[in-house]
Amino acid sequence: MDFSSLIETRYSVRSYKPDPIEDQKLQQVLEAARLAPTAANRQAIQFVIVHTEGREEELKRIYNRDWFVQAPVAVCACGIPAENWVRKDGKNYNDVDVAIAMDHLILAAANAGLGTCWIGAFDAEATRELLALPDGVEPIVFTPLGYPADEPKPKKRKELSELVRYERW
Amino acid sequence: MDFSSLIETRYSVRSYKPDPIEDQKLQQVLEAARLAPTAANRQAIQFVIVHTEGREEELKRIYNRDWFVQAPVAVCACGIPAENWVRKDGKNYNDVDVAIAMDHLILAAANAGLGTCWIGAFDAEATRELLALPDGVEPIVFTPLGYPADEPKPKKRKELSELVRYERW
Repeated sequence: MDFSSLIETRYSVRSYKPDPIEDQKLQQVLEAARLAPTAANRQAIQFVIVHTEGREEELKRIYNRDWFVQAPVAVCACGIPAENWVRKDGKNYNDVDVAIAMDHLILAAANAGLGTCWIGAFDAEATRELLALPDGVEPIVFTPLGYPADEPKPKKRKELSELVRYERW
Repeated sequence: MDFSSLIETRYSVRSYKPDPIEDQKLQQVLEAARLAPTAANRQAIQFVIVHTEGREEELKRIYNRDWFVQAPVAVCACGIPAENWVRKDGKNYNDVDVAIAMDHLILAAANAGLGTCWIGAFDAEATRELLALPDGVEPIVFTPLGYPADEPKPKKRKELSELVRYERW
């Protein structure tokens, strides 16, 4: 799919079919994340692939929505801030790097006909416990991954004039 | 271009032709950024479009590389943290939201034959001053935008086995 169609096509999927994800498709979306750029190529990122079947109730401690555990897979994108590139003034680019990789994964999923939904409103403590994240590995964002069972709604966005300023000095 | 080719094609362009960017292409890459998802759809992001011609020396205070000012345009992706969605535990998703929008812009640029390079190692103070950023608007990342004058090198990335963990409980 051409990129301009792809970004129109991607939407926040909040209902999933139980159908499993073909392993080849899972590898394809992970490969897209792998190819993402990171500051100074540090690649201080980790993806945890969670199979939801049989663990639905437990996983709802992470994010309490039925559709979160409807999808066969949940992906947790994590960062390792202590290994990430940090600017001279102390700004750590770990959130940026994790977000770029997750954006690649999410767009690759849409390209493969799979649904996703960016989730930030999860319980970080429950995530660390249930996914047994090692010290220093920070969960930044989740997405379910599966075949969509709902339909996209039109995107509501600000106008470009509100988002863009032309600096001409 | 199909997404899987697109992410292979995008690379960090560190030499640019002086050729101007067609306005239609600039609008196209900004539209891609506009369509990006943000936490709770807050859209607390701003893009500043800087025309480099005649301001090369001044702009080098922001990032001191010849190729940064070789491109006809530099794009500064900013966040407005105080307007962004914040998780219950205090985690602010502004860096994530800005990065998603910038990733859309950068991939749309590659799709249109334009070159970009993620830049985090800029001088934030010089940026605030030279771009006259209002209080509360934080510069997060820059990219030059223009036609590439160099060639891609192979991407060096960790193996998937280093980046991905399968959680099966």
